[in-house]
Amino acid sequence: MAEHYHFGGCDTVALAREFGTPLYVVSEDDVLARIREVKAAFDEKYERAHTHYASKAFLTKDMIRIAKEQDMGLDVVSGGELHGAMALDFPPERIVFHGNNKTPAEIAMGLDYGVGRFVCDSLGEIELIDRLAGERCARPHILIRVTPGVDSHTHAYISTAMADSKFGVPLPQVPEAVARCLGLKNTELVGFHFHVGSQLLKNASHLMAVDILLGVIRDVRERIGFTTREFDLGGGFGVRYTKDDDVRPIGYFVDPMVERIEAFCAEHGLHRPDLAIEPGRWIVCEAGVTLYTVGSIKEIPGIRTYVGVDGGLPDNPRPALYQAAYDAVVANRCDEEATEVVTIAGRCCESSDILIRDLRVPPLAPGDILAVKSTGAYCYSMASNYNKVPVPAVVAVRNGVPRVSVRRQTYEELYERDV
Amino acid sequence: MAEHYHFGGCDTVALAREFGTPLYVVSEDDVLARIREVKAAFDEKYERAHTHYASKAFLTKDMIRIAKEQDMGLDVVSGGELHGAMALDFPPERIVFHGNNKTPAEIAMGLDYGVGRFVCDSLGEIELIDRLAGERCARPHILIRVTPGVDSHTHAYISTAMADSKFGVPLPQVPEAVARCLGLKNTELVGFHFHVGSQLLKNASHLMAVDILLGVIRDVRERIGFTTREFDLGGGFGVRYTKDDDVRPIGYFVDPMVERIEAFCAEHGLHRPDLAIEPGRWIVCEAGVTLYTVGSIKEIPGIRTYVGVDGGLPDNPRPALYQAAYDAVVANRCDEEATEVVTIAGRCCESSDILIRDLRVPPLAPGDILAVKSTGAYCYSMASNYNKVPVPAVVAVRNGVPRVSVRRQTYEELYERDV
Repeated sequence: MAEHYHFGGCDTVALAREFGTPLYVVSEDDVLARIREVKAAFDEKYERAHTHYASKAFLTKDMIRIAKEQDMGLDVVSGGELHGAMALDFPPERIVFHGNNKTPAEIAMGLDYGVGRFVCDSLGEIELIDRLAGERCARPHILIRVTPGVDSHTHAYISTAMADSKFGVPLPQVPEAVARCLGLKNTELVGFHFHVGSQLLKNASHLMAVDILLGVIRDVRERIGFTTREFDLGGGFGVRYTKDDDVRPIGYFVDPMVERIEAFCAEHGLHRPDLAIEPGRWIVCEAGVTLYTVGSIKEIPGIRTYVGVDGGLPDNPRPALYQAAYDAVVANRCDEEATEVVTIAGRCCESSDILIRDLRVPPLAPGDILAVKSTGAYCYSMASNYNKVPVPAVVAVRNGVPRVSVRRQTYEELYERDV
Repeated sequence: MAEHYHFGGCDTVALAREFGTPLYVVSEDDVLARIREVKAAFDEKYERAHTHYASKAFLTKDMIRIAKEQDMGLDVVSGGELHGAMALDFPPERIVFHGNNKTPAEIAMGLDYGVGRFVCDSLGEIELIDRLAGERCARPHILIRVTPGVDSHTHAYISTAMADSKFGVPLPQVPEAVARCLGLKNTELVGFHFHVGSQLLKNASHLMAVDILLGVIRDVRERIGFTTREFDLGGGFGVRYTKDDDVRPIGYFVDPMVERIEAFCAEHGLHRPDLAIEPGRWIVCEAGVTLYTVGSIKEIPGIRTYVGVDGGLPDNPRPALYQAAYDAVVANRCDEEATEVVTIAGRCCESSDILIRDLRVPPLAPGDILAVKSTGAYCYSMASNYNKVPVPAVVAVRNGVPRVSVRRQTYEELYERDV
């Protein structure tokens, strides 16, 4: 009998049979292992260092429960993400509210719940928060997101810290922003935040940004007398999508950052601020696979063989959006030799819906189960109903036991808001 | 008082106030005018010529009702789209089932409902349909989608007819596919389909494809004795997103196609097949606008001014997916002189979430309403909950009277399937 691909201690072919395809499978054991790893390398290794989970990578009620139980902070970027945290009584003081354009309603929602920190992208937003906080006799903590002007040498779309960015306060405007924040009555500026980009495999951008931000911290201390109490180093730590991704342990990123910060503070007689990092993809990406059933197989002689699967763009838009590369195995015969090269086509009526180009596989047949790896981040969270395809179920596995974490959307639900 | 932008006979600022933002607004008057236009130019101008609405562009219950009342055909590409048609008793004989990888369950669903035509991308799919039809004593009509090998000179993502395509049967394989179809007992091959690409502003690709397909039609007649009874010319007729799009009336596409087909059939003594076209975008795109509220405004001196709005990638992924260009007006002061150039940034924590680059506008302030034009196609249908942003409401306007067609998704609904 052919060998089956196991993930999280489960036979993925059995999962496909029991729960149907397409199917998101998340190994909570792997998520927990990642959380332990980052905590050991950061929270427990350094004083006053805290890891926040970046919700936008993958947010379900189960994931909020895990972050809550594991004593992590939680980054949210919208009222919708905050709503989930509130529904599960996530401790508000551990929530950090990000976003380049929070609406007044969302800010009010965060203030009313007592969100611990607002990371602000503009002085205008801080003034808006200050006004709304005043109406509520609240006094939220504020971090200014600074655009360090670092080109992270990644795909332009996920490079967020160059000078020309919708995110953050441009470097030259930071001192004035700090001075004006200190004049506000209902907000308390506590520090700075940066985020240099996503899926970075080298630490150079992080280190450059740290150096730039340390200059800011010293500058505002000397010129304005502001003491930075918190310094949030963002996320962007790369994961392995394919064997071409040369990933490093999390310490490769955080150790030299902390080292520089401590050395700088010692040298300049500065108080070392509390530190935070915000991994999202790094926690969940490799902890997820997506299972598909193979359907149509089309050989175009001399050109390419297209293998159609029953999902694609609606459950994973990343190949179309970022030309993202994925790896996959044929789950029902993962021991067979890969003798062919095929292109995995999604099911959408859309040429861009190609999941994987030039994948090496054994000869395929309709009904085979394909397991696409490293789909734990930015797949479920970016899912659409394009072509009126229902969002797949999310099955969580722990200790080899699967359970439905998010049930599959029904056809009826696709029209439930239609009048 | 500043002049307000009116759309579909409604003051869009009043719509934003009443229904909130972001908001999809669809002018059903404009949709109906387009349907009248295409029917006059095709269905009524030529014998045995039928227009099918391509659901994937924009599908709501109201849109299905319109297609039904207007006596149009309906293209569906999934069980989810078919489900909507079935829920509203759309006449099955007018439904055409497309898709490069229909699942067995979807095919069964179509057969059980009595779908008029299946457009098939591979012989394997036809054999699957034949087998499932046999189990049901059904005898569905089949069109073979042919890949004519035409490069439509459009964005690679929406060019679907080159030889290297996941869609259709490659040209050299068509005669064998026809011969084998004729040997099947439970399906009835009736003709051919092509689709050369999307948002085409020139008719050259359509005409090249028609010529190639006419060669196929003659070839299979002469070699196999197969008479083509139906010829589906697909869609892809371009619309105006911005003033740079030089659009032509629909006759610019269909007239020379029909002319060539009639001349060719007359010349070769062939029966002129029934004709079909499948506009989707062409019917709905310009009939829609999206309203946003301006939030954060960030000027980066010497670089760019970013104007943040309360929507973006989740309600319109096309700029990120295709670098699609849009035009917009400031709805609450559409008479003011455009003296500034700004970039409209979406609200997502994602650098790719830029809606419009270098838009000329009057000086903007938070609270202004921005109306992005030509968002009727592939915005609502591609909407996601990325960043847990609820899907906006769709408001339909007719005779200047607005009504909710699809209500706004709630925060609770974002987690309704979570266990």
